[in-house]
Amino acid sequence: MRLRNKPWASEKIAEYPHYIIPEPETKKGKWADVFGNNNPIHIEVGTGKGQFVTGMAKQNPEVNYIGIELYESVIVSALDHLIQEGLPNLKLLNVNAKDLKDFFDESEVSRVYLNFSDPWPKTKHAKRRLTYKTFLDMYKHILIPKGEIHFKTDNQGLFEYSLMSFSEYGLLLKFLSLDLHKSDFEGNVMTEYEEKFSAKGQRIYRSEVQYKD
Amino acid sequence: MRLRNKPWASEKIAEYPHYIIPEPETKKGKWADVFGNNNPIHIEVGTGKGQFVTGMAKQNPEVNYIGIELYESVIVSALDHLIQEGLPNLKLLNVNAKDLKDFFDESEVSRVYLNFSDPWPKTKHAKRRLTYKTFLDMYKHILIPKGEIHFKTDNQGLFEYSLMSFSEYGLLLKFLSLDLHKSDFEGNVMTEYEEKFSAKGQRIYRSEVQYKD
Repeated sequence: MRLRNKPWASEKIAEYPHYIIPEPETKKGKWADVFGNNNPIHIEVGTGKGQFVTGMAKQNPEVNYIGIELYESVIVSALDHLIQEGLPNLKLLNVNAKDLKDFFDESEVSRVYLNFSDPWPKTKHAKRRLTYKTFLDMYKHILIPKGEIHFKTDNQGLFEYSLMSFSEYGLLLKFLSLDLHKSDFEGNVMTEYEEKFSAKGQRIYRSEVQYKD
Repeated sequence: MRLRNKPWASEKIAEYPHYIIPEPETKKGKWADVFGNNNPIHIEVGTGKGQFVTGMAKQNPEVNYIGIELYESVIVSALDHLIQEGLPNLKLLNVNAKDLKDFFDESEVSRVYLNFSDPWPKTKHAKRRLTYKTFLDMYKHILIPKGEIHFKTDNQGLFEYSLMSFSEYGLLLKFLSLDLHKSDFEGNVMTEYEEKFSAKGQRIYRSEVQYKD
C-alpha cells in the first residue's frame, strides 16, 4: 500500500481514545472489560484502511473485533469507518504486530485474521512474513486452544509458502479455496485491496487453519 | 478419459508378461528380484496411457517404476510406449489400485505418484478419490517411513479436497505449486492429459507430501 504522509494523523488518533486504544499494554488480560462483555475476540493483524474489520463487526455483533495497524496514515482511514459506523464491538490498535504478546494475555483471543499481508517475496525476508513460524508461535500464545487463523491473499507465492509453513507447524487445514470469488463461500467481507484486484479478475486464495491444542 | 473398446487388448497384454506382470500378487515382497536390483521403487496409481511413467523411467534410470492401471484398453497404450523404449526399470500392472496391499509388502515402495486422478466431484463419492483417508492408509502401509506422495491435477476441487485430506491425516506438505507451468519447478514430466490441458491455459496444481513416520 502506498503511504501518504498525513501530519495531522497523530492528532486525530489522540482525539478518539475510545476507538484507537492508547497504551494498549495496560489492557492486556482486560479486553473483556474494555468491551464490557465476554464475547470472543477476533483480531485482524494488518487491518489497513479497515473495510474488512468494520464489515465483520457490523455482520457479527456477537463477536468483538480488534484491528491492528502499524501505520498512522493508514489507520486513520479505519478510524473514519469506525466513527461513521459507531460500532461498540470494534477497537483499533496503532501498534506493531510483532509485539502482540504485550497486548494480549494467553488464550485471550479466539481467532486471527490475516488479509493480503505483505508477501515479502525475497527468501531472505521470509522471517517478516506474517505466516512465518515465529508469528505462528506468537498467535498460538495469545489464542485459545484450537484457535484459528483465517488467511486470504491474492499473492500466489505467499499463499504457497503459508500453507507449507502451516503444515510444518502442525496446523490443521480446515478450509481451502483456491478461487474464493468463484466458490460458494458465503458471508465474505472484502478488503479494499480485494475489491480492487478481484474486479480485475485476480484470484483470491483463502484458508482456515486450526491449532491442534 | 474416454474408454474405447479394444477386444484385442487382453491378448496383447498376455504377449508381454515381461512388461505387464501377470499374477502380480506372487511378486509381493519380491520386486527387487523382478528388477534385479535394490533401487527405490516409485509407483504411479492410475498410469493411464503411460507417458508420465515412461518419461520418468527414462529420466531416472536409478529408480524402478511401476505403473498401475485398471483398464486394459488404456494400459495397452502404456505397453506400446514401453515396447518402444525397452526400459529395464519400468513394469506395468493391470490391477485395481484399491488392492495395493496384495501386490506390495510393507515398506516396499518409496514414493506414490497420483496424476490427474478422477475427481469424483460428488460428495457422496468422496471415498473413491485416491486421496481419501482409506487410500492414504493403504499408501502408508506399503511406503517406507517418511515415504512421499507426489500429486498433480488440474482439478481445483480435487486439489482443495486433497490438501485438506492430507492435513487431516497429518501428512507434511513439503512442496506446493498453484501454477506448475508458470513456476521454476524443473524436470516436470507431463502426462498426456497435462500436455493437452496446460496448452489450453489450464492451471496445473502440484504438491508433495510426506508421511511423518
